Amino acid sequence: MTRGRLEAFSDGVIAILITIMVLELRPPHGASLEDMRPLLPKLASYLMSFVFVAIYWNNHHHLLHAVHRVNGRVLWANMHLLFWLSLVPFTTAWMGEHPGAATPVALYGAVLLASAIAYTVLTRELLALHPSDSPLALAIGRDRKGKISLGLYIAAIPLTLLSPWLAIAIFVTVTLLWLVPDVRLERALARE
Amino acid sequence: MTRGRLEAFSDGVIAILITIMVLELRPPHGASLEDMRPLLPKLASYLMSFVFVAIYWNNHHHLLHAVHRVNGRVLWANMHLLFWLSLVPFTTAWMGEHPGAATPVALYGAVLLASAIAYTVLTRELLALHPSDSPLALAIGRDRKGKISLGLYIAAIPLTLLSPWLAIAIFVTVTLLWLVPDVRLERALARE
Amino acid sequence: MTRGRLEAFSDGVIAILITIMVLELRPPHGASLEDMRPLLPKLASYLMSFVFVAIYWNNHHHLLHAVHRVNGRVLWANMHLLFWLSLVPFTTAWMGEHPGAATPVALYGAVLLASAIAYTVLTRELLALHPSDSPLALAIGRDRKGKISLGLYIAAIPLTLLSPWLAIAIFVTVTLLWLVPDVRLERALARE
Amino acid sequence: MTRGRLEAFSDGVIAILITIMVLELRPPHGASLEDMRPLLPKLASYLMSFVFVAIYWNNHHHLLHAVHRVNGRVLWANMHLLFWLSLVPFTTAWMGEHPGAATPVALYGAVLLASAIAYTVLTRELLALHPSDSPLALAIGRDRKGKISLGLYIAAIPLTLLSPWLAIAIFVTVTLLWLVPDVRLERALARE
Repeated sequence: MTRGRLEAFSDGVIAILITIMVLELRPPHGASLEDMRPLLPKLASYLMSFVFVAIYWNNHHHLLHAVHRVNGRVLWANMHLLFWLSLVPFTTAWMGEHPGAATPVALYGAVLLASAIAYTVLTRELLALHPSDSPLALAIGRDRKGKISLGLYIAAIPLTLLSPWLAIAIFVTVTLLWLVPDVRLERALARE
Repeated sequence: MTRGRLEAFSDGVIAILITIMVLELRPPHGASLEDMRPLLPKLASYLMSFVFVAIYWNNHHHLLHAVHRVNGRVLWANMHLLFWLSLVPFTTAWMGEHPGAATPVALYGAVLLASAIAYTVLTRELLALHPSDSPLALAIGRDRKGKISLGLYIAAIPLTLLSPWLAIAIFVTVTLLWLVPDVRLERALARE
Repeated sequence: MTRGRLEAFSDGVIAILITIMVLELRPPHGASLEDMRPLLPKLASYLMSFVFVAIYWNNHHHLLHAVHRVNGRVLWANMHLLFWLSLVPFTTAWMGEHPGAATPVALYGAVLLASAIAYTVLTRELLALHPSDSPLALAIGRDRKGKISLGLYIAAIPLTLLSPWLAIAIFVTVTLLWLVPDVRLERALARE
Repeated sequence: MTRGRLEAFSDGVIAILITIMVLELRPPHGASLEDMRPLLPKLASYLMSFVFVAIYWNNHHHLLHAVHRVNGRVLWANMHLLFWLSLVPFTTAWMGEHPGAATPVALYGAVLLASAIAYTVLTRELLALHPSDSPLALAIGRDRKGKISLGLYIAAIPLTLLSPWLAIAIFVTVTLLWLVPDVRLERALARE
């Protein structure tokens, strides 16, 4: 029953995160379309982070949906995930202000990686609370997509030294990989 | 059952959007009524966007109320709508700072148009999940008001080159058209 | 059943309003207690508005609790109330920056008055939907406290020309009047 | 039954507080890792406050979970707690800008102390509404951890004159003390 409030609090935090990123988009001083051009990297960076956070909300939604019990460890694993997600607006803003600079892209990737690790930890904590034949356990299975994402993020961070744009291409690839909500869970739940 | 959390998340995002617009209203440096005058266009622009976003919340509320099922496509159609709505505070601020300038009004209109298209897409995705004799399908019907709004927005954007104020008048007209909540849905649901 | 989502959305907006006011409190540049002194009027103004908005949340909570039906008119009466409340952070900031100046205090009072009128309108719309012997109708009764508040706000606004501090004293008086949550409704609901 | 909306509103306010602190983390002007260094005290101060507010959410969640009745006094005790928590982003920002300065650390501690007192008052108000053999009363018991925290905060504030870092070490100690969610309540509720 505490699941409800865990969902409500996470929804609140994620809704705020996804929205305050837009506060970084300050209207330009001029009123022509030209004045809008320097904002394009910021807009692109906002769009990428919006989709990234939206994927987390979608997957979090599907994950908790299959959950029957939570405990104190789950609450903290969830807080840990929210902490890393809360840094996304900050790294998004820095990357948007320095398009193509290596360090901001690397830090952006590091926060994506930390969020992905925190999500994996949350999944493990939830699995530990459910029997191995529960819909949750069956649905998550070997979590191949999760492991591939972690590997790609780890590869992308040092690549920023070579080419920040290549690293960004990898972030976009991982995002596309997840754009489809977790079909495994959706299928498993439909069977339930 | 996932409908509940979809509503909660959308409520959160829309509540934040409608509220952070007010952060653009910076108090003037002076303390006289005169000092407040330059803020009037911003206030008017805030009022228009507040009503615009409030209409979306009202209609979204009525729409989801008639829904019995959601799936992954609906979640993403909803995120897509929230993305465009999230740009409203930004375009509102730009328009408010340059009253009567063509480009900010055109961009403001473009975001209104994109939001209206996203709402239509969400409606279509929901209709695809419900039988053609469901309360939802009956209520939406041919969606005349939705089509008229799209047409008016498309007309208004090029008109900004001629007269930004005419375009604003069209935006206000569409808003008034929707100020009444979706009576079709309300009626259909009352019958249910 | 739509009452639930109306409450959720109002809770969201009010929670954000009460919280973003604190964003006005910018930490001073220095690190001594002296540097904090110029912030005191802002802090006092934040405290007054926090209590003011908290009273609205409390009364809104009690009011909707006794409600059995809502319609489109109620949704808009509620939005109208939220609009005026959304201007409170703005007028709070202006008043906090110019302690003792007449116009900011008058505008602050005008927003308090408009909120009180909007609350009265919402109450009337809800009463129109419920029979005259409903718990809601019995609880609200003749709404003496509401009428006294309106009268005091109307008196306070012109008084700012004479003495802004007197007007502020009246605002505080009205606030104290309401600090006790609506006992009428609480009593009536306990009887239910 | 009003418990649900009290939880929803508190969740909203706490979710916003924990998130707007991140708005203080302004991206540096440069794009190198060097430019990030001056932000480290702010980041550390954000991390400490995130954990502090998260602990309040966790304990608030467990506390209200065991509650069967609320009244007007509880609503105001809860608002009083939210007021002090709402000042955390402000004191966090001040402390983060002046690492090692005594007054900001003392004020930070004062807000932590006031929050802890407000939480104790809320607990007392809830206990007064429940019989002495209720799960709530049994779970809270003599509230040793609460009393130790109050004592440590009271000791830490004057210590800032001696050494701000010692006071910070005490804040971290109290935080670690609470990092484990309220096992007493969790155990008592499991028994229920």
